[in-house]
Amino acid sequence: MQKGKSSIEFENPPIVASYASVAGKKEGEGPLGRLIDVVEQDEMFGTETWEQAESAMQKQAADLALEKGGIRRQEIRYLFAGDLLGQLIATSFGTVDMEIPLFGLYGACSTMAEALCLGAMTVHAGYGDRVLAIASSHFATAEKQFRFPLAYGNQRPFSATWTVTGAGAVVLSKEGKEGIARITGITPGKIVDFGSRDSMNMGAAMAPAAFHTIRQNFEDMGVDETHYDKIITGDLGEVGSRILLDMMKQAGVNLEQNHMDCGMEIYQKESQDTHAGGSGCGCAAVTLCSYILPRIRSGEWKRVLFLPTGALLSTVSFNEGQSIPGIAHGVVFETCQP
Amino acid sequence: MQKGKSSIEFENPPIVASYASVAGKKEGEGPLGRLIDVVEQDEMFGTETWEQAESAMQKQAADLALEKGGIRRQEIRYLFAGDLLGQLIATSFGTVDMEIPLFGLYGACSTMAEALCLGAMTVHAGYGDRVLAIASSHFATAEKQFRFPLAYGNQRPFSATWTVTGAGAVVLSKEGKEGIARITGITPGKIVDFGSRDSMNMGAAMAPAAFHTIRQNFEDMGVDETHYDKIITGDLGEVGSRILLDMMKQAGVNLEQNHMDCGMEIYQKESQDTHAGGSGCGCAAVTLCSYILPRIRSGEWKRVLFLPTGALLSTVSFNEGQSIPGIAHGVVFETCQP
Repeated sequence: MQKGKSSIEFENPPIVASYASVAGKKEGEGPLGRLIDVVEQDEMFGTETWEQAESAMQKQAADLALEKGGIRRQEIRYLFAGDLLGQLIATSFGTVDMEIPLFGLYGACSTMAEALCLGAMTVHAGYGDRVLAIASSHFATAEKQFRFPLAYGNQRPFSATWTVTGAGAVVLSKEGKEGIARITGITPGKIVDFGSRDSMNMGAAMAPAAFHTIRQNFEDMGVDETHYDKIITGDLGEVGSRILLDMMKQAGVNLEQNHMDCGMEIYQKESQDTHAGGSGCGCAAVTLCSYILPRIRSGEWKRVLFLPTGALLSTVSFNEGQSIPGIAHGVVFETCQP
Repeated sequence: MQKGKSSIEFENPPIVASYASVAGKKEGEGPLGRLIDVVEQDEMFGTETWEQAESAMQKQAADLALEKGGIRRQEIRYLFAGDLLGQLIATSFGTVDMEIPLFGLYGACSTMAEALCLGAMTVHAGYGDRVLAIASSHFATAEKQFRFPLAYGNQRPFSATWTVTGAGAVVLSKEGKEGIARITGITPGKIVDFGSRDSMNMGAAMAPAAFHTIRQNFEDMGVDETHYDKIITGDLGEVGSRILLDMMKQAGVNLEQNHMDCGMEIYQKESQDTHAGGSGCGCAAVTLCSYILPRIRSGEWKRVLFLPTGALLSTVSFNEGQSIPGIAHGVVFETCQP
C-alpha cells in the first residue's frame, strides 16, 4: 500500500508470468543479441512504412509473450502500452487486433515503467487477473519524427544516443506460484526540469529525474543503495549515467558499484558507432525482457530497481525554445527464488 | 471489482471531491459559457505560444480545482493527465510546477475518461487518498498539429468539428461524506476500427467505439439504457451521434431519449459556425466540469454513463493512408444525494 510520499508497496506482489522481446538487426548484432527472442533482419518488419513496422513489432512481442507463457489473448484483461510517436500511432495500430481494452500511455522513454506501474497496481487490486505491459521504439520512426530525414546523413555529436528498434512485452499476473519475478513496489516519478536545452544530449536532461526518483524510492522505502543488487536506468547513456553518478556522489550515495544503464548495455559502443548508447522506449523494454528478467528469475539478482527515464519534449516545444524536462518511474523487481 | 468481461464495479465508490473548468472566449460565448469557472478572453492565456497557452490552461484548471475544494497541492498523490499534442507537451509543461508524480495518458479525445478510470482505480485500491485527473485541448494547437495553418483559412466541411479550447480538472477522493458525485463503475474500451478514412469526419470514426463500449457496459453491468438518466458521449458531434443512435437502433436499443453529446452542447451551432459540434479532450472535460457534475451533484441526474470518445490518428498515419480507429472509455457517475 501507500509507502512514504510517492511509493506503493504491494503486500501480495504481482508476478511476471511471461515476457518477450523483439528487436532489429542492429540490436541483434549487439551484446544482448543472442538473448533477444526475435531479431528481425528486415527493418520494415514486412510492412510498407516504418510506423507500421513498429506496430508489427509491438504485436509480435505481445503475441510472443502470450505464447511463451501459454496464455490465451482472452485471458488478458487490460493493455497498458505506449510508444514515442505523436498520438501513439505505433501502439494504436499495433494493438488494435488484440481486441483488449487499452490504456494508452506516454512517458517518453520511461513508458515501460509507467505501464508496469499501472499494470501492477491493477493486478494487485484485483481489477484483472492478467494484464499486458508493452512499449516500443523504432530508430527510423523516431529519427523521422524528432530529428532529420535519414537520407540527410546528419552528423551526430558524441552525447547523442541511438534509438533502439525494439519492443518488449510483459504479462503481469496475480496468480501462479512460479513467477519469473515479483513486483514488490513502485515509485512513480514527477517531472523534473533542470532547464536542459540540448536535444542531442538527452542523458543530461533525464539524469536529474533519475536522481530524484531513486532518492524518493530510498526515502519512501526506508532503504539505501545496498538494498538493491542492481539499480538499472533506462537510457541515460554514457553522458547521463556519468551525471547521475556524480549527482549521487554529491548527495553522499555511491552508485558506482551497482548502477547499470540499459542504453549502455544494448550496443557495443566502439564497433556499432552508437556514441553515448541506446535510447527510446524500446531500449529499457528490450533490455528488461532479454537480459534483466532472466537474471532475476535465476536468482542471480535478488532485488532490482528498474528505472526507465524519459525526456519530455517534442519538436514543437523544442523549436519554441522550451527546455527538456525529464521523468523517471521506478519498479522494484524481486526474485521468486528462495 | 471485476464485473463482466471488461468492467470494474467499485464497492466503496471514489468520490469527486472538487472540479474546475477553464475555457476560451468562443466556449464562453456558447450555451455553457456562464457555467464555466474561468472564461479567458486572451487565446494566448498570457503566454507566447499556443502550446504554452494550453499548458497554462491546464495548470489554471488544476489549481482552481484544488482551491475550490480547499485541498492543498501536497494532498494530491498522483496526477493522471493528457492532451492531444505530440509527446503530450501541453501536459508536461502544464503540470511540471505541481511537483506531483505524473502518469501521462493518451487516449485522443477520450483522455478525460482514461484519467478518471485510472484515478478511480487508484483511489479505490487505497494507493492514494486523492488524485487529480486533467485533460485539455486548444483550438489553435490542434489545428496547427492536425490540419492547416490557421492563416490559410481552409474551408471546413459540415461533418467537421471545432476543437474546444478548454481544460477540466477533477479531484477524486476516497474520503469525505459530501461528495459531488460517486464513481461506481468503469468500462475501459478497446480500439474499434471500422476503416473510416475521413479526417474531417471524426464523429463517424468514433461512433463505433462508443457503440461498443456502451454495449459492453450494459452487458457487464447487467443493465440497459433505462438504467441511466443520461448516456453522454464526448465529442461525436451531430454526424457521429446520428450514427451511434442508428447503430443502437439496429441493435434494438433506443438511445434517442437519454443520449447527450458534449460536442453538441458546448457551442450554439448556427450562431457559432462550428458545424458538427465541438471536439478535443477539452470538450468532454469542460462539459463534465461545468454542466454535467453540477446536475449529478444536485440529484437532477441520478446516474450517468460518461463516455468520451477518441479518434486514434496522427497526420503521419493519416498521410500514409491508414484508417482512423476509435476508442471510448466509460465512467459511471452516481449522485451522492439520497
